[in-house]
Amino acid sequence: MNRQNDTRNKVLDVACRLFYSQGFNGTSVRDIAHSANVNVSLIHYYFKSKQGLFESLAVNYFEPYLEILEQEAVSEFQQDVESLLKKILHYKQTHYQLSCLVYRELSLNTVFAREMLVTYIAKENHLFNMILFNKRSKVEVTFREKLCLLQLKGLLNAPFMMPHECKDPFITEASIDHFVEVYSELMMEQKTVQYLSANS
Amino acid sequence: MNRQNDTRNKVLDVACRLFYSQGFNGTSVRDIAHSANVNVSLIHYYFKSKQGLFESLAVNYFEPYLEILEQEAVSEFQQDVESLLKKILHYKQTHYQLSCLVYRELSLNTVFAREMLVTYIAKENHLFNMILFNKRSKVEVTFREKLCLLQLKGLLNAPFMMPHECKDPFITEASIDHFVEVYSELMMEQKTVQYLSANS
Repeated sequence: MNRQNDTRNKVLDVACRLFYSQGFNGTSVRDIAHSANVNVSLIHYYFKSKQGLFESLAVNYFEPYLEILEQEAVSEFQQDVESLLKKILHYKQTHYQLSCLVYRELSLNTVFAREMLVTYIAKENHLFNMILFNKRSKVEVTFREKLCLLQLKGLLNAPFMMPHECKDPFITEASIDHFVEVYSELMMEQKTVQYLSANS
Repeated sequence: MNRQNDTRNKVLDVACRLFYSQGFNGTSVRDIAHSANVNVSLIHYYFKSKQGLFESLAVNYFEPYLEILEQEAVSEFQQDVESLLKKILHYKQTHYQLSCLVYRELSLNTVFAREMLVTYIAKENHLFNMILFNKRSKVEVTFREKLCLLQLKGLLNAPFMMPHECKDPFITEASIDHFVEVYSELMMEQKTVQYLSANS
């Protein structure tokens, strides 16, 4: 069982790295099998298809990320916004290639992106609307609040949606901590964030 | 001459629309020729290849955009940051599909993106660094300023890098003005922007 999981995770790691560097379309299941040193049929057995592989990667990205937001949304004692932002940024940065991959695929507006990722994005927005504006339904959210959340997400995702701007960062535990520190400090200087902080 | 230009522009318009809705890879020169009601060989004559078509679109996007920044950078009498942000947002929103396309292609990190678009991005950063921090060379820019600019660009590009968040907006002159008004107002409430405003 453990050995199976090891192989599965190894394939996912390799797939993430190749999708990141060569693109989803530029990578074949054969490339992945070769780099992971496993048989192509084994990948088909575990993941069905290349899309199945990407789906598993997306689940791996979104489940723990939404968990962070969920904990904040249901908690009676709300943490300050700064610690929430730091947790999110730390999570995204420790999964740098995966974060870049997911947002790149979302921008493509493919059937796959619409059907699968949009469900996660809807859940993310719902949780953010609860945490930030105390709104439980989509119709209650005003145009202004919608743009406000868009800006917050723009700030949180900028390093991963514009990887060409800070390319191939050499990621160590220390460099992640430094990045999160400076980036979240700059974010907290944003009045929108402070306004959200006062309202939450 | 005018008729040639008309045909050329019509092909570019159709290409932009199809690349936006079907993706660059999902669109063939044949699709474009068919939708624009012109001969395939005419497209090859004007643009050489599908990539040539995209290059013309990128030039159409970046040249007027960088012009806005250039005017600000060389002007002795600097405008306030708010009017600059409004000009940029208005420009991006009136070229909605083109803006989405360019940032999507940039996130793909293809050879084409690296070779062509990165030159424009470097120029954009250089102009922003001049306008915001009064820095003329890349080495003078601090890590903090680099992240600051990344956040500003994250705010300016969020609607176009996350088109799934505000999808298929029905764009009219009035709706663009309203969007620019609310969005830039929210941006101006950001302290980073105000800090930049005070320093410029």
